[in-house]
Formats: sequence, structure tokens, C-alpha cells
Amino acid sequence: MSHQDNRFEIAHLARAELLTPVPEKTEWFFTELLGMYVTKREGQSVYLRSYEDPYQWSLKITEAPSAGLGHLGVRTTSAAALDRRADALKADSVNLSWGENEFGYGKTLHFQTPDGHGVSAFWEVEKYVAPPALQSKILTRPSRKPLKGVPVKRLDHINLMASDITPVRRSFERHLGYRTTESVLNGNVEVGAWMTTNLLGHEIATMRDSTGARGRLHHLAFFYGSLQHNTDAAEMFREYDIEIEVGPDIHGITQGAFLYVMEPGGNRIELFGNTGILHLDPDADTKVWDFNDFDVGLAIGGAKLPPTYFTYGTGGTLSAEAQADLSRLASV
Amino acid sequence: MSHQDNRFEIAHLARAELLTPVPEKTEWFFTELLGMYVTKREGQSVYLRSYEDPYQWSLKITEAPSAGLGHLGVRTTSAAALDRRADALKADSVNLSWGENEFGYGKTLHFQTPDGHGVSAFWEVEKYVAPPALQSKILTRPSRKPLKGVPVKRLDHINLMASDITPVRRSFERHLGYRTTESVLNGNVEVGAWMTTNLLGHEIATMRDSTGARGRLHHLAFFYGSLQHNTDAAEMFREYDIEIEVGPDIHGITQGAFLYVMEPGGNRIELFGNTGILHLDPDADTKVWDFNDFDVGLAIGGAKLPPTYFTYGTGGTLSAEAQADLSRLASV
Amino acid sequence: MSHQDNRFEIAHLARAELLTPVPEKTEWFFTELLGMYVTKREGQSVYLRSYEDPYQWSLKITEAPSAGLGHLGVRTTSAAALDRRADALKADSVNLSWGENEFGYGKTLHFQTPDGHGVSAFWEVEKYVAPPALQSKILTRPSRKPLKGVPVKRLDHINLMASDITPVRRSFERHLGYRTTESVLNGNVEVGAWMTTNLLGHEIATMRDSTGARGRLHHLAFFYGSLQHNTDAAEMFREYDIEIEVGPDIHGITQGAFLYVMEPGGNRIELFGNTGILHLDPDADTKVWDFNDFDVGLAIGGAKLPPTYFTYGTGGTLSAEAQADLSRLASV
Amino acid sequence: MSHQDNRFEIAHLARAELLTPVPEKTEWFFTELLGMYVTKREGQSVYLRSYEDPYQWSLKITEAPSAGLGHLGVRTTSAAALDRRADALKADSVNLSWGENEFGYGKTLHFQTPDGHGVSAFWEVEKYVAPPALQSKILTRPSRKPLKGVPVKRLDHINLMASDITPVRRSFERHLGYRTTESVLNGNVEVGAWMTTNLLGHEIATMRDSTGARGRLHHLAFFYGSLQHNTDAAEMFREYDIEIEVGPDIHGITQGAFLYVMEPGGNRIELFGNTGILHLDPDADTKVWDFNDFDVGLAIGGAKLPPTYFTYGTGGTLSAEAQADLSRLASV
Repeated sequence: MSHQDNRFEIAHLARAELLTPVPEKTEWFFTELLGMYVTKREGQSVYLRSYEDPYQWSLKITEAPSAGLGHLGVRTTSAAALDRRADALKADSVNLSWGENEFGYGKTLHFQTPDGHGVSAFWEVEKYVAPPALQSKILTRPSRKPLKGVPVKRLDHINLMASDITPVRRSFERHLGYRTTESVLNGNVEVGAWMTTNLLGHEIATMRDSTGARGRLHHLAFFYGSLQHNTDAAEMFREYDIEIEVGPDIHGITQGAFLYVMEPGGNRIELFGNTGILHLDPDADTKVWDFNDFDVGLAIGGAKLPPTYFTYGTGGTLSAEAQADLSRLASV
Repeated sequence: MSHQDNRFEIAHLARAELLTPVPEKTEWFFTELLGMYVTKREGQSVYLRSYEDPYQWSLKITEAPSAGLGHLGVRTTSAAALDRRADALKADSVNLSWGENEFGYGKTLHFQTPDGHGVSAFWEVEKYVAPPALQSKILTRPSRKPLKGVPVKRLDHINLMASDITPVRRSFERHLGYRTTESVLNGNVEVGAWMTTNLLGHEIATMRDSTGARGRLHHLAFFYGSLQHNTDAAEMFREYDIEIEVGPDIHGITQGAFLYVMEPGGNRIELFGNTGILHLDPDADTKVWDFNDFDVGLAIGGAKLPPTYFTYGTGGTLSAEAQADLSRLASV
Repeated sequence: MSHQDNRFEIAHLARAELLTPVPEKTEWFFTELLGMYVTKREGQSVYLRSYEDPYQWSLKITEAPSAGLGHLGVRTTSAAALDRRADALKADSVNLSWGENEFGYGKTLHFQTPDGHGVSAFWEVEKYVAPPALQSKILTRPSRKPLKGVPVKRLDHINLMASDITPVRRSFERHLGYRTTESVLNGNVEVGAWMTTNLLGHEIATMRDSTGARGRLHHLAFFYGSLQHNTDAAEMFREYDIEIEVGPDIHGITQGAFLYVMEPGGNRIELFGNTGILHLDPDADTKVWDFNDFDVGLAIGGAKLPPTYFTYGTGGTLSAEAQADLSRLASV
Repeated sequence: MSHQDNRFEIAHLARAELLTPVPEKTEWFFTELLGMYVTKREGQSVYLRSYEDPYQWSLKITEAPSAGLGHLGVRTTSAAALDRRADALKADSVNLSWGENEFGYGKTLHFQTPDGHGVSAFWEVEKYVAPPALQSKILTRPSRKPLKGVPVKRLDHINLMASDITPVRRSFERHLGYRTTESVLNGNVEVGAWMTTNLLGHEIATMRDSTGARGRLHHLAFFYGSLQHNTDAAEMFREYDIEIEVGPDIHGITQGAFLYVMEPGGNRIELFGNTGILHLDPDADTKVWDFNDFDVGLAIGGAKLPPTYFTYGTGGTLSAEAQADLSRLASV
């Protein structure tokens, strides 16, 4: 199957599961500060959606010994596309399984990135229909904007740290039809790739994990679409003792307005204050940044990304070497 | 060919041609106030692009006895898609022709909407490459944001008035693969349809022309992506005697932040201050508004759309009846 | 006492009392939508403050048969200034009285504008000190920004309708030391005056009541300071069935970013999205607008102020003639 | 004369003179990027004003061997106030002189802060009156917003580095009637003071010069009043190779939205994206920050102020010790 043929197989990033050792606090963060709605509680998990997320949930919070990514989930553009994605994975001998065990979603394909991140793909979804009290007068809005905190609109994108990003990127390209809009090279080593199947600058990104760990989460991002809301959120985070890592500012890469914070469970969450560049040109070249001349790429304004931005992630598995590296970093 | 099959044939709205009886003034409007770059002058035309438009031009201004739309142009997602679109049009006996006569664009298919608006479709384009002095440090930006006026980023969408919008909508759906994200019904009569082939709430819209005229332009829209810039632009327009018809405000339909003004040639131009809703859900229903309960649809804030919004257009052809209608309206 | 001498006697507008026939609904509006804090309940009244208001309350809501202004209150710059203001009023034979009967405020001078609006002036105030749970890390912020609705920062200004604005303006100038930054003339008739004792474009305005009624309230305004928040608020008001009269837009007069809505009790409330022009020049001329060339004065953008803006007010007393006028207007 | 009595003697910061070794480049920065108007050229100086500055100029650029502050100038609230300020200075044996030698300003009092910064005070000014082509339809706006760059509205405030800030603060308080809204203490040492005579959080600030130098300029600030414009300006500065030191972000102290850059001559310029807190309460306490718990004071968002923020200034005089300190810093 040619690259051309698989460009339109994935519609969008639909959901993600976060693991947290402090589920009540993590839920408080997403509901009271970010204004997300709870749609279900089940076992050790709670399901949430932002006011413009289209399905039953975009975020699942699951209690676990430590923070990390449970899985990310993408929706295909058709039932047939889902089958074709399974075929493409099988053709490359990627382990996969099928399930139908998540609230609000039907038949689901499960597999892992070459670095070990959990990925789900599905076509069947249950559209969210608001009860009368939550209905919006704006017909394209599945539910009314809540009156709590600084409410996010929808899930935006996810960034995966990887011990080696090249095979991760290639899997998303070959198996799911992503195209890489921008990348960063440090000499010959790929250290970052931003990938999309639609207009967004990226829905999935992967960055080199300088600790050598595998399968970690860099961040999960939710969308505001207004710079003012990133500023409002920063002030709220400060007042409520949520650690701000960096931002608000705007990356040159993706032109995305960022604000990175740590939710109480330890996962890095990004608030996205604009759409960034929209990729309308269907055959635009991948824009390649040089890691050694990357200032504007990191931030158009004066923000300096701290070392943690390149070393801190959650979940995954650390090699003995990585453990030692982290210990060294912690002792500095 | 099923609806499913043609969903991914058109990438985006790439260009439009505006006719104007005062080309110098129209050019001043787009260059000095909206910060567009001139890339070529030829005959009675001047070609322009915004600082993030990807090709040689997104706007062609052509001198003509009166204002109106020359044509709109969409880019396909592949060369084969272009051929398939020609086949689909031929299958429905739509008159079409091929040409290759526009600066910066290759082989082009020409036809008309059922209401008479000129449409071009093409795959071959010449990507814009900035000279060193205009290069941006932001790699996804084809040229530096200019230091003039309140600069627009890119062409956003077009709205076509039609004597009967149903066949116009159906042609975009059947022949080009557009899906209708939102529509407005007045009883059983379709009075508006918003159509897209990508995430944008619409790239092409059509609204019923209450004067009965055929083939007129309602407006052409350029993108800011920031509400503040719509406000900045409104102030600029006031100071420079550009007529503001309505806005800034936000439509409930499309959730688009609007500001409508008349460029010196008489064409209605919209400045678009956000992306509006992005349609990530690939099989969302068309949201249908009732024209008689449409307040929030027209504006979320307090803006009242004036009668001209529903009657004023440029170009096209007026029936004798429409001429009489317009005279009656003018005498009110 | 010369005009020069009394320029610095009033510090700012500190509070206002609104009458409402539906106090629970009015309280809901100010607490759940505008995020104000309740600081006391007493008898038929509830006292509220915004998160940056410096004293115990800036808004008192009192149950009454119909909507209207209870009184407005200004703080002097010293105890002596308060005595001098009493002397200035007495010198012009204005009826006045002293009291000390309001929660959080000390010795208070009461009188009326020539049109019958209640005015209080005072020096002694009780500064608001937040309990630990409401303290902000920002030292100039008396309390933390709440997590509810779209929270206003502070009381901004008040606008009084008057049957004849000239004596009202003169009283504020002569007795309290206000200067008139901008005014509107319709022929020789003053139809609006914007007055301040500090940098703000106005803290007190008065507009001609075209119904001939006396002592009515036009609107009370609260401050956001961000255009985005006026837009956020407009969307919230739409969703919660709060009538938007006009806005968001920006007046040319005062350069103030406005949004006018009717709180459930019927009083017009303005949300103020910027500071407007700050009057740093201490001897600037009064800027005089011509009512017949006032488009930019009313709105820089495309907003059209509806007839109600010039005829609707709350409270006060209607003459028989005004009653008849209103009936005629209602029947149009 | 009591503190009470001199509170209303100074109206506002009206002008400043910057020294620059590259006057053409400095002028380009202020005219092409910040949209200021040139009102006069004379000798080695050029006079500029922002579009809402009320007088003939707010900024004078003068060629000099190195960057620095020429002087700052404040306008009194009356002619008598100017004489009283001279008396207050004389009573403390401060050297002063009178002159009348600046374009657009009359009789002027000259003196120095205890750290050696030049200060002018005056009452007589020539109000700017725009030629027809530059007149605004907004009557409180002395001239039309220009169509160049990201135009600043007006001069906002100035920050003076001082070897010892206590006497500097006391001079502004005693001699000119400033009140200190906020200060920073490092143990018992005052390291920062923010002072005003009006509602603004500060018009004059002074920060401890950790190099021990005397009379240096920290920064001069111009006002946008919109966070978006600080963001727009940051992008512009990046594209045009203007060094961004830090920002955009918002200080907790003053609640001011900051962006610090170095103009081509080397002086630090701040763009101020909001008014910050307005001090309406006339007898508010000075808010005292602890330098060792000052994170929110420095930035509400994630910005980290770099070491240069505390050590880099222009002009003034360096002690031998300070010279050595600077050399050590440079070699780190």
C-alpha cells in the first residue's frame, strides 16, 4: 500500500488514558481547574470529556502505582480503514489484539509503538448526547461550556518520549498513515517528529528520551484556542500550587501556544492556546529544524525550556543505565 | 462512486479572483491595510498572497466594470483525484474545460456551480519560496509577517450567494466530495449550507440570495486567528473609511469570529478571528438550524446582522424580477 | 473654593446598591456567572465584592418592588476632604444627611443628584482581608480569583440617566470635584457627560433620559480588563438566557470595551473589557462629540446601539408625560 | 509639608531621553517596529511620540558614546505644584536648576536622584495637535494609530537601577509626593520599590543594582494594553533580530504584563501588555514582598528572569569594584 493510499485512514486522536497514583487529586485537577465533565466511574477508573469532545470520553484516569500513559486512541475514517490498519500492522509482524471493552467505544485494535506505548484504534464510537441541562445553543458544541475553572475545549494532541524515535515515527507513518510535518535533527539523529493525519500541526509527536528510557509519556495536551485562556490558566495554576514547568509562550515548531504543567499525579499536561499552523497544503515538505539552531523552534518569545523538558517523562520502563542517569540528574 | 469514496479528494480552498472597478484602491486595501504581498502584475490583474499562504497567490484582483467573483480555486489531494473530479462532473453532464493559464498553477479544470459561479480545481501548484529578505525563522511560515497594517495570515473561505442553494450544495457534495457541516432551513427551503473537505467548519458556504439573483459572491474571508486582530482591524477600517457592515462578533454557526467590511471595489470581505469549530469527528451529522430560531446562529454576542447581509452581493446576474426587488429594497 | 482646588477630593467609586424584585436570581447572576463573593447577608440585602475590590463590598443587592439604583458611593481622599465636600454641598443648599449604617463603611454623607439619584460619600472604610483559603499569592489582590463563571475584577463605573444632565454634571463638578473628560451635544443640549476624578475615562457618567424620567439608572459596570473575557461572558450569557442588549464592541467615547446585558432583576449591567483611555494629561480639554456625527463615538466596530439603549433605565420616577411616552414607544 | 499634602503634585511621567551609540538603528526600532511618530529632529537628537502620547514628544533619542538614560521628565498637576516641588527639594538641599530648553516643554526644573539619574519636572507643555492626515476619529486619541509594526500607545513607566534604592525612593516620596505601592526586601535591604502618584501600579520604579553601579537605567516601558500585542511584538522582535531578554509573561508585582527586549543601542525596553493593578484605594498599605519568596512576584507564568535582569543596566557610573564584578560575571 503506497504512502499516498493511507493518508486518510485515521481521522483524529480521540482519547488517552492517564495513570496516576493520586486519582482523586488528578480528577480534581481535570474537573475543578480544567472544567472537564465526568461521564462514568468504573472500577479504578473515571472517564471524562471536555465540553467539545465528541464522544463519551477523551480522558480516562486510572489509579496505578505510578504516573504514566495507559494508552492513546485514534479513530479511523471508516470501518474498512480500521481493518486495513490491522492488515498493515500484521504485514510488518506487529503484535496486535482486538477488544471491545471500553465504555463508549466499540471494536478496538490494540498494539504498541516500537518503544512500547499503548495504542488503540477504532471506528465504532458512541457519540456524546448531552442531557437537557447541559445542552448548548451552539449546535456544533456537544455540551455547554461549564462554569468552573478555565475549561478546556477538547483533547488536542499527545507527545511520546522514545528511546529511539525513528521506528516510532516510521510506524505511525507506515501503519497509520501519519505524515511528519516537522522534525528536529541533532546531527544525524532524529530527536523529534511532529505527525498528523489532518490539518493540525500534530496530533502525535515523539521526542527522543535523553535518559534512554522506553515508552514514556512526555505530555498530553488539551485545547483552549485563545492565548488569554493560557494566561488565565497559568494564574490559576499558580494560585492552586500546580507546578508550571514553562510557558505560556509559543513554539516556533508547530506555532503552538504552549503552557506545560504537572498534574497532581505527575503527568505533564499541556494547555494549547491556539491551533498552531494548520497544514492545508497536502504535499508540503517536512520542515527540518537543526537542534543546534533551535531557539525559535523552542519558543518565539523569551521562554527558556528547562532541562526537565528534555528528561522528565512518566510511565514506561527505565533501563539500569537510565535509572543511573536520572539519579545523577537528581543529585545536581 | 460512493460519498465515502470522494471524501478526501479536495485538500483545500487555494485561491480566489475578485473583480473590481477600482483596482488601485482594492490593491491598497489588501496590501496597506491587510498586509498582503504582491507577487505578480500582469495585464489587468495583480496577484497577492498572505504571509502564510503556501502558493504563489491566493488572491487575484482583476479590473472589471463591476465588482464580483472571477472564480474560486480548490486544490485536489492528488493528480488522480483531479481526474476523478472531472469524471464525476462529466458523469453528471456538467460543462467543463481544461486550461493551464494562471501564474503559479498548472493544469486546471474549469466549470461552474449550478448557479453560475466559476470554479477551478488543480493539483499542480508552484510553492511560494521567499527571497532571503522575506524569509521567516519559523519554518512552517512561507514568509515573514509584514510590518504593515493588520496582516492576514491566509485565505480562509468563501461564501457564495445562490438563487437556489440546493443544487449548489449537491454539486459540491457529489462532484467534489464536500460534506455539509451545518445548514439552515426556512421551512422546507434550504437557505444556507456550510461545507468542508477538511477540519475547518467550512471552506465553501452558500446562502440563498433573497433577491433571486444568480451567481453572486457573498464574501471572501481571510484568517487572523486572534480575536484581538479582528478588533484591531475594525479600528483600522473605521479610521480609513472602510465600511464595516457588522462585527466583530462570533457566529453560532461555525463558531467563527467574524468582521464583515466592504473593500473599496464593493466586494464584501470577512476577517476571520478564530478557526471556529474544527470538525474532527469524521461522521458527525449535519447540524440543522431553523431560520426562525437562528439568533445564536447569527451571533453569539449582541451583533444584529443588517438586512444587507441577506441581500447584498457582488457580480452574478440579476433577473428582471431581482432588479425590481432591489429597486424596491433601495427605496425603503 | 476653586475648581483647581477640589480636583483631588474623591478617590474613586467604591460601591453601589442595586434594587431588584428577584433578589435570588440577581444574586445568582452576580455570584455564579460573574464570580462575585458574598461577604454578608442582612435583612433584605446581600453584600458582594469582586476579587479585586478593596473593601467589604462594592455591590449591595436589596429586594424591592422594582429594579433600580439604591445609591452609589464614592470614597474621598481624606477625612478632611469629606468634610469639605459637605461644606460645598451646604454652600449650594443641597440637602444632606450623615449616617453610619452600612456594613463595612464608617461615617457617611448622603445626598441626591439634582435628578434624584442617591449619592453617598465616605472616608472610613473597612479593608477586606481574605481568610487563608481565599488569599492570593499576588499581594495586590485582596482575594483569589474564583473558579466560577467569568469572574469580574472590580466595580468600574456607573451611568445615570437624567431628565436634564447639565445640573447633574455641574453638581459632580462643583461639589465633588469631578472633571468632564468627554461630552455629547445635540445642538445646544447636553445629552451625555463622562466624568472622573482619577485616570479612568469615567467613573460616573450621565446621559439624557429621552423619556423625561428622573433619577433612573442606566447601567452599573464591572471590570474585566480583557477583550477575551467580554467575549467569554457574552457566550456565557447566551447559554444562560441573560439578555444581551449590545456588544461586545468598543465605544469611541471613553475607548471602553463594552458588553451590556440585563441582570435578572432588570438592571442593565456593563462588562468592561479594557480600561479605555487613561487620562494622564491633567489639563486636557473636554472632548465634545456631536450627537449627529456620533457613529464612532457609539461603537468603533459595527455594533448598532438599539433604541432601548437611549430609553431603558431602571428605578427613578416617571412623570405622567414620560409614562405616556413609554407607552407610545412600547406600542411601536 | 505632610505626606498627605503632596500626594497630588505630580500628574504623570511625561517623557524620557535615551542615549544611544547607534541613533539610526534606535530610531528604526522605535519607528518601524514600535510605530512611533517623529515630531522633530534637532542636533544629535530626534523627538518621538506614540499615537496616544498627549504632548510633542515622550521619547528623545540622543546620540552618545554609550547607551543610558538622558533624563526622565514628570508633569506636575499645576504651576504652583512645580514651585512647591522646587521648594521641597531646596529644603533638603538638593541641587537644582531651571531651564526652558526642550522642544515642546516650558519652564523646567532639573535635579538628580540621590543615585545620579537626571530628573526634570514641568507644568508647561505644548499639547500635540495632529495635522489632518494624522487625526483620529476617536476624540481622546491625539493621532491615528499608525499602520507600521506593532504600535505602542504611550509611554508607561521607567525603572531606575540604584546602588542604594532607599534614598532614591525617599526622594521621590518626600520631594515629589510619590507613594510606594509595592516593595521587595532582602532581609533588611530594600531591593525594589514601585512608586506612583496616580492609579497606575507604578510610573517610577527603582531596583537595587547588584553591581554597585550608580545611576543606571533598568528599563523604559511603553504601553500596549493587550496581551496579544505583547505576543505580536515578541514574534516581530524574533524575526528582526531584536534580543528578547524575557517575556511575555505577567509579574505578580504590579500585575504587569511584561516583555523585555534590548533596543539596538543597548537600552532595555519593556512592552507593557496591560495596565497591571490600578490603585484605586487611596490609603492602601505598601505591599512588601520577600526577595527569598518572590517567584510569583517575578512571574505568574513560568518565565524565569535571567541573571542579566538583575545586573544589566545602561548609563550611569561604575565603580572599580563594579567593573570587576561585571568582568567576573562576563567570564562565567
